[in-house]
Amino acid sequence: MGMDELIDRVKEKGNPSVIGLDPQPEFIPQCVWDTINESGLKAAASAIRAFNFAIIDAIAGIAAAVKPQIAMYERFGAEGVAAYADTISYAKQKSLIVIADVKRGDIASTAEAYADAHLGRAKLADKEYPVFDADFATLNPYMGEESVEPFLEACRKYNKGVFILVKTSNPQSGQIQDLPVNGAPLYEYVGRLVSEWGRGCIGKSGYSDVGAVVGATHPDQARRLRAIMPHTLFLAPGYGAQGAQAGDLVEGSIVNSSRGIIAAYQRDPYKRAFTPDQFAMAAAAAAEDMRRDLSRLKI
Amino acid sequence: MGMDELIDRVKEKGNPSVIGLDPQPEFIPQCVWDTINESGLKAAASAIRAFNFAIIDAIAGIAAAVKPQIAMYERFGAEGVAAYADTISYAKQKSLIVIADVKRGDIASTAEAYADAHLGRAKLADKEYPVFDADFATLNPYMGEESVEPFLEACRKYNKGVFILVKTSNPQSGQIQDLPVNGAPLYEYVGRLVSEWGRGCIGKSGYSDVGAVVGATHPDQARRLRAIMPHTLFLAPGYGAQGAQAGDLVEGSIVNSSRGIIAAYQRDPYKRAFTPDQFAMAAAAAAEDMRRDLSRLKI
Repeated sequence: MGMDELIDRVKEKGNPSVIGLDPQPEFIPQCVWDTINESGLKAAASAIRAFNFAIIDAIAGIAAAVKPQIAMYERFGAEGVAAYADTISYAKQKSLIVIADVKRGDIASTAEAYADAHLGRAKLADKEYPVFDADFATLNPYMGEESVEPFLEACRKYNKGVFILVKTSNPQSGQIQDLPVNGAPLYEYVGRLVSEWGRGCIGKSGYSDVGAVVGATHPDQARRLRAIMPHTLFLAPGYGAQGAQAGDLVEGSIVNSSRGIIAAYQRDPYKRAFTPDQFAMAAAAAAEDMRRDLSRLKI
Repeated sequence: MGMDELIDRVKEKGNPSVIGLDPQPEFIPQCVWDTINESGLKAAASAIRAFNFAIIDAIAGIAAAVKPQIAMYERFGAEGVAAYADTISYAKQKSLIVIADVKRGDIASTAEAYADAHLGRAKLADKEYPVFDADFATLNPYMGEESVEPFLEACRKYNKGVFILVKTSNPQSGQIQDLPVNGAPLYEYVGRLVSEWGRGCIGKSGYSDVGAVVGATHPDQARRLRAIMPHTLFLAPGYGAQGAQAGDLVEGSIVNSSRGIIAAYQRDPYKRAFTPDQFAMAAAAAAEDMRRDLSRLKI
């Protein structure tokens, strides 16, 4: 995929939104559960598939990308992970770009296994097998460059990209990320590293295949990072349900909303216009509103 | 499980070793592959099960704990994750303590899903289901306390524990972890945080349920951390294949070896004494040698 292709698709759709596919059980309406004949973890996996596929159908014409959060699938074990794999594959069939929100990070040999799983191919004897085969993956930088390098190799080989955590959207992100390192916060130092890791793969868009996660909930920090990371696209979580608004976003960002879209039918103003059975229509309406809201954001 | 129970079992066995169950395909001997009738990812999952079960049988009388690295299973998709779940369950049947090496870390709602998966229960309607149900999980602290708190709740509720990355064993660990924060390296700051997170759950052993990952490859740093984290048990990777030796270890550590044990049949001196068909016997011999080598390490 590569960052250029992501940016082309965002421009085609005129929409920097990323739809977060985080199917918590309480977001899935009763009408979906009613169609499920299995029980336990298998039932959860089937409900997730039915729910996600309906959401994907509803938003495929509106947004360019989806971001499944693997924790919401891993929670249901191997059955849940099978639903995760099927979600990625269905989204790709519908020409959506898939950002795997996995936040992995480990020593080199382990990072290689993760990279095989999420972006590359598993090697067995003399054959290679795509596994989850997402277009992008999110990564945690705490263990240093060698935890990222196997993913960069997969990016080069299979035309993919990554987004590395720099300044996250959560309230306690500052506990470690804001610590002062030589007079500047740690996240700026990490931002410079991430920028450097992308230096060898800057595309025609002007952005490298190595993006950064920069929470929309921290607009001042995002502006500062924007200045010091000119070739790095930002993936901005925190819009909508977490409180950030269009005005908080900086140029060169794609913007995630999860429950604000997929559970729109449970939330104002959509819950007045849509019944729970119309959850997919509600998601489409919320996705359209988000597109309009972000129409002035430059990439 | 809780840290007290881990420490009791380590003392019973007189062995602070943790056997890393990281079944890379190249560690699995041909005799195991020859018994597999499936193909592709399913074959990998079946080979992993057969290999791991034989290793577990061989080392269950020697070591107290195993540490499956989930990346090595995730690499083979949902099939691999099913083999991961079966590995945990088989190890628990054999009275081994299971440390899930997952290094997860995410915002609160996501961390809750991960905690449900790895240590707790998945909730569906009014029922609860154990998922992977390991005894311990490793965590990444970059996103702050809220990414850890749902795991601490699972620890309290289900008598489990965690090990949080402080100073990792890999060569580039220092790139971020050694950065100077107010005159001391970042990992010391993180160490103090981790120590604080465990303050409310110190058991009769004197250690809290919140342990730390401190690479055996950094003995000076480990000694310093030992002094500032008196109530924190260390999980020390890096012994054996990564180069650290018994003399590098500090008191209050449990010590992981992965390929040094499970692939002992491929390595000196064991490859001279055992054929590939005797991989499990070679693992047992290597585990016995490791126990002897660590016999003077105090917990």
